Amino acid sequence: VPKKSAQEILAASPASDWRGLDPENTLLMELASGPVLIELAPRFAPAHVANIRALARGGYWNGLAVVRVQDNFVTQWGDPDGDDAAKARPLPAGAAPKLPAEFSVPIDRIGKTAGFTKLPDVDGWAPRTGFAEGFPVAADPQTGQAWLTHCYGMVGAGRGDAVDSSNGAELYVVIGQAPRGLDLNITVVGRVLKGMELLSALPRGAAAMGFYDKPEQRTAIQRVRLLAELPPAERPALQVLKTESATWAQLLDARRYRGGWFVHSPGHIEVCSATVPTRPTPGMTTQPPPR
Amino acid sequence: VPKKSAQEILAASPASDWRGLDPENTLLMELASGPVLIELAPRFAPAHVANIRALARGGYWNGLAVVRVQDNFVTQWGDPDGDDAAKARPLPAGAAPKLPAEFSVPIDRIGKTAGFTKLPDVDGWAPRTGFAEGFPVAADPQTGQAWLTHCYGMVGAGRGDAVDSSNGAELYVVIGQAPRGLDLNITVVGRVLKGMELLSALPRGAAAMGFYDKPEQRTAIQRVRLLAELPPAERPALQVLKTESATWAQLLDARRYRGGWFVHSPGHIEVCSATVPTRPTPGMTTQPPPR
Repeated sequence: VPKKSAQEILAASPASDWRGLDPENTLLMELASGPVLIELAPRFAPAHVANIRALARGGYWNGLAVVRVQDNFVTQWGDPDGDDAAKARPLPAGAAPKLPAEFSVPIDRIGKTAGFTKLPDVDGWAPRTGFAEGFPVAADPQTGQAWLTHCYGMVGAGRGDAVDSSNGAELYVVIGQAPRGLDLNITVVGRVLKGMELLSALPRGAAAMGFYDKPEQRTAIQRVRLLAELPPAERPALQVLKTESATWAQLLDARRYRGGWFVHSPGHIEVCSATVPTRPTPGMTTQPPPR
Repeated sequence: VPKKSAQEILAASPASDWRGLDPENTLLMELASGPVLIELAPRFAPAHVANIRALARGGYWNGLAVVRVQDNFVTQWGDPDGDDAAKARPLPAGAAPKLPAEFSVPIDRIGKTAGFTKLPDVDGWAPRTGFAEGFPVAADPQTGQAWLTHCYGMVGAGRGDAVDSSNGAELYVVIGQAPRGLDLNITVVGRVLKGMELLSALPRGAAAMGFYDKPEQRTAIQRVRLLAELPPAERPALQVLKTESATWAQLLDARRYRGGWFVHSPGHIEVCSATVPTRPTPGMTTQPPPR
């Protein structure tokens, strides 16, 4: 019996398997090349998300830039003068300069209320993996901790050597093979929902760690706002598939057991194998994001 | 005791842990943005590698193009008119139009002669993983087969629905999370040794599967030659770390057990976690590749 394809599964998905965006948990980053939408994860990084909201509301990133693109690793943005106290852009009112590490949370925080769905597939990096509220998650019952995993498209808060040196002003997104070795070492704050290709296809930086060696190579950030700052009619009308839905379970199964072109099925996936789908909100005239 | 860093391990590596390039097994693809070097894997795909040699010697790819870039998946190049029998570029003499599938090889082919080094780390996709002759490899003792894995930078031969429909003229490289679900479904022919960022940072295509919808979006391929076709003095002087070396084992261990900035060590890696290093051949004046 031929398996249903991902397209067929999505086409048959009930409306109740989708959810809208929380305007308080979604960032709109505008580049000359287009809009990037980022969903924040307050359940996993409450202090960082609160700070990111304050930074966005204060217009902190407007006019700043993508400063680093390291191939098969991360694209990073923030203040090009951030390391120079004399030239660094001041943080807006209400934004803290440093925050406690939020590398993991108590495992009961991803329980029934977050709709954690466990993958049966073995993972070498963590005793348990799965999805919660649209995000890839790992957990360790022995330590009692759960954390967001560094899959493609996940966004984290850069830090220095001190674990409490991040504040969410310097953000990075994973653009290559999931660097799961970063898990539990840095605070992950969310996921790119849309516009990922605008961050992954940027020229790689020639300096150490992929930083650009010439300022003109940087990509300018026109503006970053919380969706809550936009008039409701101007907010991108996007839905995210619920990861506790039957549709998501079917999509994962369609990847474990392939049909059509495939002659071999792996019978396996990993938490970073599949990206949680989004779609334009049905029946809504999607506004072109403000430019 | 602080662990040695990757840089320190590489700096201390003996010359005998490195090898040069086999001119019969290395492709030089010239783009306007720079050179791309691809190492072929005749032990895993002998018929495809032989065909690729014939295609290169016949100048097949000269003036063709990158036709597809699908985000978090693959960059693909070949004949933009390949599907149009009237306009398709003819294959050069000695190149077969289709080849038997080379999805795997008998496991004894990666034995002592290929220097297979097994990873102790668990992998969900295959019972056994490791490295052989610089390539990431998986194997299944039950089926008696071994195969190259679809890690970042690995190059494969596109095929249609028939398993014997590939000929090596249409090639792709992995530019995102390792699509291990492709393993055992398509012939993998080699790995990008240098210039990966010239293929991974290209604009993504807007048509289905990342194909470009406008011809002018394609990246032109100036020329593809086998290194054996170049005068010895013009061949890029590059070395590859031997994956059966102590240095490679130490590098993998440095990724399992992190020091410095890291506060948590995963105690784990996977076959696609680490890229086998290359370096300019010591003492050689590296020629700028011909442009």
